[in-house]
Amino acid sequence: MGKNDNKQAFVEHITPRSEDFSQWYTDVILKADMVDYAPVRGCMVIKPYGYGIWELIQKEMDARFKATGHENAYFPMLIPESLLLKEAEHVEGFAPEVAWVTQGGMEPLQERLAIRPTSETLFCSMYSKWVQSWRDLPMKYNQWCSVMRWEKSTRPFLRTSEFLWQEGHTIHETAEEAQQETLQMLEVYREFSENVMNIPVFTGQKSDKEKFAGARATYSMEAMMQDGKALQAGTSHNFGTNFAEAFDIQYLSRDGKLEYVYETSWGTSTRMIGAIIMTHGDERGLRLPPKLAPIQVVILPIAQHKPGVLDKASELKKQLEAVGLRVKLDDRDTVSAGWKFNEWELKGVPVRVEIGPRDMEAGVVTYMRRDTFEKGQLPIEGLAQALEDMLADIGKTLFEQAKAFKDAHTYVARDMDELAKGVQTGFVKAAWCGERSCEDAIKEQTGATSRNMPFDQSDRPSDTCVCCHKPATKTMYFAKAY
Amino acid sequence: MGKNDNKQAFVEHITPRSEDFSQWYTDVILKADMVDYAPVRGCMVIKPYGYGIWELIQKEMDARFKATGHENAYFPMLIPESLLLKEAEHVEGFAPEVAWVTQGGMEPLQERLAIRPTSETLFCSMYSKWVQSWRDLPMKYNQWCSVMRWEKSTRPFLRTSEFLWQEGHTIHETAEEAQQETLQMLEVYREFSENVMNIPVFTGQKSDKEKFAGARATYSMEAMMQDGKALQAGTSHNFGTNFAEAFDIQYLSRDGKLEYVYETSWGTSTRMIGAIIMTHGDERGLRLPPKLAPIQVVILPIAQHKPGVLDKASELKKQLEAVGLRVKLDDRDTVSAGWKFNEWELKGVPVRVEIGPRDMEAGVVTYMRRDTFEKGQLPIEGLAQALEDMLADIGKTLFEQAKAFKDAHTYVARDMDELAKGVQTGFVKAAWCGERSCEDAIKEQTGATSRNMPFDQSDRPSDTCVCCHKPATKTMYFAKAY
Repeated sequence: MGKNDNKQAFVEHITPRSEDFSQWYTDVILKADMVDYAPVRGCMVIKPYGYGIWELIQKEMDARFKATGHENAYFPMLIPESLLLKEAEHVEGFAPEVAWVTQGGMEPLQERLAIRPTSETLFCSMYSKWVQSWRDLPMKYNQWCSVMRWEKSTRPFLRTSEFLWQEGHTIHETAEEAQQETLQMLEVYREFSENVMNIPVFTGQKSDKEKFAGARATYSMEAMMQDGKALQAGTSHNFGTNFAEAFDIQYLSRDGKLEYVYETSWGTSTRMIGAIIMTHGDERGLRLPPKLAPIQVVILPIAQHKPGVLDKASELKKQLEAVGLRVKLDDRDTVSAGWKFNEWELKGVPVRVEIGPRDMEAGVVTYMRRDTFEKGQLPIEGLAQALEDMLADIGKTLFEQAKAFKDAHTYVARDMDELAKGVQTGFVKAAWCGERSCEDAIKEQTGATSRNMPFDQSDRPSDTCVCCHKPATKTMYFAKAY
Repeated sequence: MGKNDNKQAFVEHITPRSEDFSQWYTDVILKADMVDYAPVRGCMVIKPYGYGIWELIQKEMDARFKATGHENAYFPMLIPESLLLKEAEHVEGFAPEVAWVTQGGMEPLQERLAIRPTSETLFCSMYSKWVQSWRDLPMKYNQWCSVMRWEKSTRPFLRTSEFLWQEGHTIHETAEEAQQETLQMLEVYREFSENVMNIPVFTGQKSDKEKFAGARATYSMEAMMQDGKALQAGTSHNFGTNFAEAFDIQYLSRDGKLEYVYETSWGTSTRMIGAIIMTHGDERGLRLPPKLAPIQVVILPIAQHKPGVLDKASELKKQLEAVGLRVKLDDRDTVSAGWKFNEWELKGVPVRVEIGPRDMEAGVVTYMRRDTFEKGQLPIEGLAQALEDMLADIGKTLFEQAKAFKDAHTYVARDMDELAKGVQTGFVKAAWCGERSCEDAIKEQTGATSRNMPFDQSDRPSDTCVCCHKPATKTMYFAKAY
């Protein structure tokens, strides 16, 4: 597939995807220097190359939150136990995985404090204080922070005891407005996933079994990894007045009556970095979406000891940075060109640009695209524009490749045999009676869980439930999941 | 001082600074809607208007860190007790104020975990794993996160159990390089303080008593609040090989020998927002530095029901936003113009712009500067440029006013009477023998602590120690402190 002469010393230790997808993932994240294991059970250190992706995710997503009228705030990381207990379903869902602070300084605490697993309860306690009349509504806040969920088995980016995320929390006058917000944020996530992460997703509503603890309805975007498994990459919840009733968030309505507010929350996390790796990565390592690549273009000077080469490389770097490209000039003289090729391929830099004496003479650079391994030459004149176009095209190609994979691995099933077969390698669309018992049976027999129900429910594979064969009421996607 | 006709309803509840500075501070932060008390002891909720300042601080400062070759990362919030105990001075300094996690999910933990009060120990444990040879050095990482210190008495932004900060941690080959880094970051902080926060500072070295737990040397920037008290607004520490020895961070040197790395750390926090309030605020509320104001220009349409006024105001907003200004159009029709004047003055918006039918006819707007209350008119033609210039001038004026206050409240003392008198209203420069016993005596007799020793030690108020009158070896600033 590649055309490199200097091979393998660097990448030969990456386990092939086909052999062991899970080991491939671990090899890639460690060798690409994104993350390391911390000396705390189930926690990770996000190293600069991984954190650089998160910074770009934050920047892109935060702009979308602000454009839709949200403001950032910061709420405390500790939640008193009594507050966490106020909404029954919520506490049942989260209590088993809470880390508890019981000692502050030299003294034992009178009440245990939870490190936030999510912050609905804190937002509710403040909203109940802040909202007086309909004039105060809506309140649309978001925070970027870390949360803690004491997980039994963990994997970097996918499931760790502590992870970074954003959580939006909004309150509204009417049920309609809250539903509109819930769906709007799901749409923000979908658009971000497709246009920024270059990952196609399934969007729809979760089953009652799989919805967020305390929500009336949960919507999700689900991405398909290259092993055919689902990764829930973002969720948006409509709480109705559920939390408002538990926390007494009332306001004086336009009619002069005390009414409960309608509430939503929505979140995405560093999990998305896992989704990027498992959607786009290949045998040589990462392939990063150009909009999220900390380094979009790496410049490798060839025969850099020759006069003028390093100067020209530096000049190119400045020229490309001037239009806003993120550029790295790798002028190390301690490793070979072949080593550098492998290293930057492993790190998923979208475009490699080589410049040597012969290129300079011809007024060109030699490039290689990480998505297709296509090599060629580009004139130095107008290089910045050409690379901007190429990066846009790489994003498009990554999306199309992922979309083709997703389409090829999405099946329909009319019975359990078909479902069991389909979820071995992808998602399965099936008719479902809507009963929890069938979801449980499907999980037990196939290892797959219900992912979400597409908004277009008209296209139903059969009239009867894939599991119990009673009349179907829903169309549901099933898949094994991370 | 102001020229407003509609007065006071809004601001009359702010306690005058002269009457009770501390109550004035609390009134301002609550009424300006920057912060609220959380239902967790000693913790605060940073509301959007306060958090907006922090976002701008982060943006400005982060650019400076990156320009000086630092990279961001994220380290876990929990630190195993055994790790925290590794460096003796460090644990002694921080153990009394640690919040401890003792339970994870349903099970008690075998080892207590500290919520990070600061992350030297975690960085050290990872650095010891990551560094092999001199080629890996320096490593220059920073993280933006929250930390927890279980404080007995707390005040929003100034001292809270949890607060937001950045902590840089670097390791180097040589003592010289580490010292250079330590002083470079102090200089980054100083430049940021003066040019972005418009706050003049005293920079210098802390005494052994006041230095960071585990540091060989701590440098600080100290700002003078309007009550004459000091606020330590940033610190930069040189650890020498102190932590490297405790954590065994060794590398193979250029000579092929195993050597310990030299380490630094440096930090600033949401305290800086407290410094901004207490340096620049006045009887009418906040006065925000233009570079950190979430809203730099507020546009108030006058007689907004008249045809064309709101359209013109919207057009102006777009025009100003196009050059990157942060603009708010306040088109509420539920409150009076006078109310709006007071509210935006309280919130410290640097420039108010009014546009009404008469202004439109004349092709002008009416402006008011928050720093000087100067009012006047500006042509609509070229307004964006004129406002950019005005904002730059406001920053300069705020700095000059603060500088004049600082200079007028900086005294010299040759004996304890002079020192005791000076620290009632400001900073005192004095000669000091260098002994801890005199620092303790000064604290006991005057309530003042040593702040820092200026880099220029030549200008010494007397030859003998201000306290014991033995020969002086240092010039030190003393002040009461937050």
